[in-house]
Amino acid sequence: MTFQQKFDQIITKNNSLLCVGLDSDLEKIPSQFQHKDYPQFAFNKWIVEQTHDFVCAYKPNSAFYEARGADGITELKMTCHYVKKQYPDIPIIFDAKRGDIGSTNEGYVRFAYEYLGVDAITLHPYLGKEALTPFLKQKEKGCIILCRTSNPGAGEFQDIEKLYKKVASSVVASWNANKNCMLVVGATYPKELAEIRKIVGDMTILVPGIGAQGGDVEKTVKAGLNSKNAGMIINAGRSIIFSKNPQKETMKLRDEINKFRN
Amino acid sequence: MTFQQKFDQIITKNNSLLCVGLDSDLEKIPSQFQHKDYPQFAFNKWIVEQTHDFVCAYKPNSAFYEARGADGITELKMTCHYVKKQYPDIPIIFDAKRGDIGSTNEGYVRFAYEYLGVDAITLHPYLGKEALTPFLKQKEKGCIILCRTSNPGAGEFQDIEKLYKKVASSVVASWNANKNCMLVVGATYPKELAEIRKIVGDMTILVPGIGAQGGDVEKTVKAGLNSKNAGMIINAGRSIIFSKNPQKETMKLRDEINKFRN
Repeated sequence: MTFQQKFDQIITKNNSLLCVGLDSDLEKIPSQFQHKDYPQFAFNKWIVEQTHDFVCAYKPNSAFYEARGADGITELKMTCHYVKKQYPDIPIIFDAKRGDIGSTNEGYVRFAYEYLGVDAITLHPYLGKEALTPFLKQKEKGCIILCRTSNPGAGEFQDIEKLYKKVASSVVASWNANKNCMLVVGATYPKELAEIRKIVGDMTILVPGIGAQGGDVEKTVKAGLNSKNAGMIINAGRSIIFSKNPQKETMKLRDEINKFRN
Repeated sequence: MTFQQKFDQIITKNNSLLCVGLDSDLEKIPSQFQHKDYPQFAFNKWIVEQTHDFVCAYKPNSAFYEARGADGITELKMTCHYVKKQYPDIPIIFDAKRGDIGSTNEGYVRFAYEYLGVDAITLHPYLGKEALTPFLKQKEKGCIILCRTSNPGAGEFQDIEKLYKKVASSVVASWNANKNCMLVVGATYPKELAEIRKIVGDMTILVPGIGAQGGDVEKTVKAGLNSKNAGMIINAGRSIIFSKNPQKETMKLRDEINKFRN
């Protein structure tokens, strides 16, 4: 089963376009987890237990685990293996934003798919398709390419000659031979999201920036849906996992997203 | 002492612009190291012992360590701590090609500077200066921004409206307030290297692509030197570390580079 198929099935099963970002910064997780043997894993397990019926994916961001070195990497692996075992129908997106020359990327492929066992990885486009071949050739794994990022200063290079549109066009026209590509477009840029939707047809778009970063749910959903009333993975991290009741926040945001799908 | 000062001193002391890339793929290191308790560390230690008098930096690439998960990260840390302790005058460049939104980059900063203790990191420019602030504000640590990469397909986006020149211009004009920025330009593109040298003045340029990737030493040195007959960190990885005699190869390449410095 490919990443896209796995994703399509869970969207239907959980009636959800919501991805929970496991941005489990050790300093920000509740104190009852901080002194456990495996604090990030214990926290993630608790989040997953509460939310697995309401999400279409989990997205751990590598930075929050790397910050702790080898210990964090171990807990990232424990988290991925736990989700895979307990909830094998929920895809895991490894938000690592990698991108090196071809032969070097083989190491990142092994980290993501052999060691962690995730379903997809986020990638920088700057080195071009040729460099990313080691990822693109993994037919059953998703390549989620940064197109328009959610940060305030995203336009510095991405706006030059509408570079973000050129990235979208290239990915659709030539990178996606294995039908395993997706794009990242920030919820903080709904106008650009709508432009990119026109370029990419029904391709799935990962949309971060809802919640703590200030993206608007209605504008985002209306700008980003594909012809099948889906085609988006809308991520919320901190606003859910560090809330008082992550389950309630997940259900609430899932339902708010769904309100604008019809 | 800043990264730039540390680097300037070692160039003079070792009369070298050569950086050795610790791309210590477990599958490629000699068999006598593969069965040690810490094989990548043992191999790196052996390489460093032979080469420390002839280099201006070491550059471990994260992918070759991440490929092994937490074990690789531990050996990467052991390598960095070993170099720092035994040869504190030799800077370590962490070739990680990171780049996320601002708050997330804090995790990578901790990984690089608190956990590993390196002197500089390589970064993707795609998200712009604002996103990279957590790195740029570390005054004593180097930010080495990808400008023109060494891979054959580098031009896919980097050639659009000469994007690589715009990256170089932005870094010089506004990213470098703390005088801690450098650029990556591949030895496989000597014409572009010469163009970028004109834009960036005396800024140091990290130049990968000599050796296994086919970059020409004479063309590279002639295109890249600054007004002080230096300003380059020329990296060679596999062609040195997997050679029969890494010390001899290091001395040979250092001397070949120096031949074209006058």
